[in-house]
Formats: sequence, C-alpha cells, structure tokens
Amino acid sequence: MKKEFVVIGLGRFGGSIVQELVQQDADVMAIDKQQERVDEFASIATQAVVADTTDESVLKSLGIRNFEHVIVAIGDDIQSSILTTLILKEIGVQKITVKAQNDYHEKVLRKIGADHVVHPERDMGIRIANNMMSNNVLDYLELSDEHSIMEIKANHLLEGHTIIGLDIRARYGINIVAIKREKEIIVSPQAEDVIHEGDILIVIGEDDDISRFEKKMLN
Amino acid sequence: MKKEFVVIGLGRFGGSIVQELVQQDADVMAIDKQQERVDEFASIATQAVVADTTDESVLKSLGIRNFEHVIVAIGDDIQSSILTTLILKEIGVQKITVKAQNDYHEKVLRKIGADHVVHPERDMGIRIANNMMSNNVLDYLELSDEHSIMEIKANHLLEGHTIIGLDIRARYGINIVAIKREKEIIVSPQAEDVIHEGDILIVIGEDDDISRFEKKMLN
Ligand SMILES: Nc1ncnc2c1ncn2[C@@H]1O[C@H](COP(=O)(O)OP(=O)(O)OP(=O)(O)O)[C@@H](O)[C@H]1O
Ligand SMILES: Nc1ncnc2c1ncn2[C@@H]1O[C@H](COP(=O)(O)OP(=O)(O)OP(=O)(O)O)[C@@H](O)[C@H]1O
Ligand SMILES: [Ca+2]
Ligand SMILES: [Ca+2]
Ligand SMILES: [Ca+2]
Ligand SMILES: [Ca+2]
Repeated sequence: MKKEFVVIGLGRFGGSIVQELVQQDADVMAIDKQQERVDEFASIATQAVVADTTDESVLKSLGIRNFEHVIVAIGDDIQSSILTTLILKEIGVQKITVKAQNDYHEKVLRKIGADHVVHPERDMGIRIANNMMSNNVLDYLELSDEHSIMEIKANHLLEGHTIIGLDIRARYGINIVAIKREKEIIVSPQAEDVIHEGDILIVIGEDDDISRFEKKMLN
Repeated sequence: MKKEFVVIGLGRFGGSIVQELVQQDADVMAIDKQQERVDEFASIATQAVVADTTDESVLKSLGIRNFEHVIVAIGDDIQSSILTTLILKEIGVQKITVKAQNDYHEKVLRKIGADHVVHPERDMGIRIANNMMSNNVLDYLELSDEHSIMEIKANHLLEGHTIIGLDIRARYGINIVAIKREKEIIVSPQAEDVIHEGDILIVIGEDDDISRFEKKMLN
C-alpha cells in the first residue's frame, strides 16, 4: 500500500515536499488557498485542491482525517498555520508536521499538539555555515554533539598515499568508512588502498579529531 | 587567523548563518538595510551595519573586497539579490554564495558569476520528505544518486541479535559503520556485537538495499 500524505501550503518548502514525496511513489493531496499555486501542482500531486484550511468543514469534507501524515507548510501567515494545526489535531489526524517561522510560533505549535516542528531556513543556514567554515568538508551527518561523519576532499598532499601509510586511525582516531571516486563508492577501503587527489573520503570520528585531520593533512 | 565572512540579508536564513559562523569562531560582518534587523545582530556579529547593498559605493567603503566569502541572503527582492551579486563580483570578491528563490533566479545568478547558489526551502523540503517516507530512517547523508549513509532505528525485532547473526552484509549488501547507543558511539562494530532495541544503526550501502533492510527487518 502506498503511503498517503497531505501537504498544506505550496510555497517553495511545501512544494518541494510534494515533489519529493511523489517521486518516491507516495500519494499526496496538495492544498493551497491560491488557485495558481494549486494549478502548478495539478499534474504532479495525486490530488490538488484549492481550499482555505482554517475552515474546519472544508478539512472534514476532504477526508483529511484518513491520511497518516499531514504537513502544514504555511509560512508567513502564522495565525493560519496555528489555526490549521489546531483543527487537524481536533479532527484526529495522527501525525502533524508544521513549519515554524520563529521560536514563539514553535512554542504555540507544540502546545496545541504538533508532532514535529521544523525551521527550514534556520536549519539550512546552520548546514551552509558549517559547509563554509571548512573548505574541504563537502557534507556531513551529525551523529552526536561530538561525533560526525564527514565528506572530505583529498587534495594533492594525499595523492598516492595508502590509508595505512597515512596512519589516520592511530594519528587522528578517525576511520575512513568509504571513498567516493568519480561515480564509484568504495565501501570499507582496505589499509593498502591508495588515495588519489580529488577522492572524497567519508570519515567517521569526533568532530575535533576530524577537524585536526582536515587542517593538518590538507592545508 | 580567523575566517572572515560577510552576510547580507538578516532574515531567518541569513541570520542563522551569522549565528552559526560566530559560534564557530569566525569574524562576521552582518548587513541589512533594515535598522531593526541589524540591531538584533549588533551583539552577535563582529560588526553589524545598516546598508543598502545595491549601492556600489557603500560596498566599497565597507571594504567588502577584503573578505574571503560573502553570502547574499536576500530573498524576496530578487532584483536586489541580483544587483548585489553583480556589484560584489565587479569589486572582486573571491567567493560569493547566493540564496535563490527559483530556477530563473539561479540561472541569472550563475551567469553573473555567483560561485554557489542555494535553495534553502527547496533543499530542506527534500530532506524532510525523505525523513517522512521512512519511519525508521532518522537522518541520512547522500553519497551519490544511489548510495547513502543512513541512521536507522533498531526496533524490538532486532533486540539481542548479533550483527553476524542477522547476516546483514550478505543478505542486504550493506554495512553497519557505527552504532549509536544513548550517548555512546560504537565505531566499526564487530560481528559478534549485540544490537539492542533503540540502538541507532549507521549503515552504508545502496539506497535500494538499505530500504530493503529497513522494510524487512523493521516492519
Ligand atoms: N489558510 C490557508 N489555507 C491554505 N493555504 C494557505 C493558507 N494560508 C496560506 N496558505 C498558503 O501557504 C503557502 C506558503 O505560504 P508562505 O507565505 O510561506 O509562502 P512562501 O513564502 O512562498 O513559502 P516558502 O518560504 O516555503 O517559499 C502559500 O502558497 C499560501 O497561499
Ligand atoms: N538591498 C538590500 N540591502 C540590504 N539588505 C537587503 C536588501 N534587500 C533586502 N534586504 C534584506 O534581506 C533580508 C532577507 O530578505 P527576505 O525578504 O527574504 O526576508 P525573509 O523572508 O525574512 O527571509 P527568510 O526566508 O530567510 O526568513 C531582509 O531582512 C531584507 O531587509
Ligand atoms: Ca516568505
Ligand atoms: Ca522563506
Ligand atoms: Ca557538532
Ligand atoms: Ca537518492
């Protein structure tokens, strides 16, 4: 059975959720109060509906209650976002994810029962700032406050060295879990494997250790 | 030497970049044309300046040219975003990252020489849609179109099993690179290590294989 979602608010954030869910083969009902936004998604979403979701009778008549997960992606109009969330909760929707504009908005949303509150602009700002701080870290996954997996670009200083030759584990306490070389992914590389300039090393370890490695080896 | 950045536009996206950069010990000049936004960052940024960045003489007098990296986080006013980027390029800024509102905006930005163009709402929408599609995948790092590292929550079905007992590598072609258990991170777990309900398994492999594992083992 396909997963079923409702996305309310078809701005950039909500619109991109609709597209990605559909691409991953989910059923999506896309709702906005503006006709032109809905038209844009008519051929993409399973259903695209013009509706003002602050009207309880509208949400009921659309059968929203029967969907497993509703995303409220109304941004600037905080009052509509809150009222919509309140109604969704009252009609018994199981899981509600809501976009918040600020801390106050988030606080209210949590009080009225939103299951998951997201801050897309803020969270992406943090990600991008992290990427900018380190020239060689391309992307990362935070495992805990102190541990991460990071993609580090190997430069000419690493060219031709083996993993064991660089002694990365002993000297930095970090592990290379994979190497990305052009289109190939080498999982669990061996000690004798040779690193080339331009390789992307996927390393796991403590943030401080990874950053020591990044600075010492690459700059 | 500290890294030095300029952030233009102190909305949620730009503001969050300023905060994260400062937290990571960079020097940041924060600029907005609205006095109240600038006031908010007066005690956070290294310098906070009220200025309209579509005025070339203003950018020159602020010495923007000497910073290594300028971020243009002007959103709705696409014309200001483009004009600001154009001037930055002309005065010789080395690296320019710009927030785009849509594909057309991105196209123009690239033509005039923006080094990096970001779509925060769209990219976060994609991330969140991915998180919603899979109940057990908590977070992920995309390595290529087909490979990822994913955080998968172990449920009661995995409780007490060893990694070798589950035969994950042979049956699914994926590897567990780490296990997150409460505050501890176990890197490169051994074949005989026992998995517990609530553990977060950090796995690497092809998306399809990980998703097969997630479905078979956890649902
Ligand atoms: N009560 C409502 N019912 C249905 N849709 C609504 C309601 N209020 C607002 N919307 C819709 O929510 C959408 C997103 O709102 P917002 O004002 O944040 O747009 P946006 O700035 O383009 O969003 P983004 O920052 O994600 O690009 C708009 O298309 C708007 O029409
Ligand atoms: N020419 C300009 N010079 C300086 N700052 C500008 C200029 N034009 C716009 N800005 C500032 O850019 C900031 C971000 O613009 P935007 O309209 O996208 O705000 P926002 O919607 O709050 O952003 P976000 O979606 O990140 O929260 C605003 O604070 C605005 O004052
Ligand atoms: Ca907006
Ligand atoms: Ca926005
Ligand atoms: Ca961290
Ligand atoms: Ca993918």
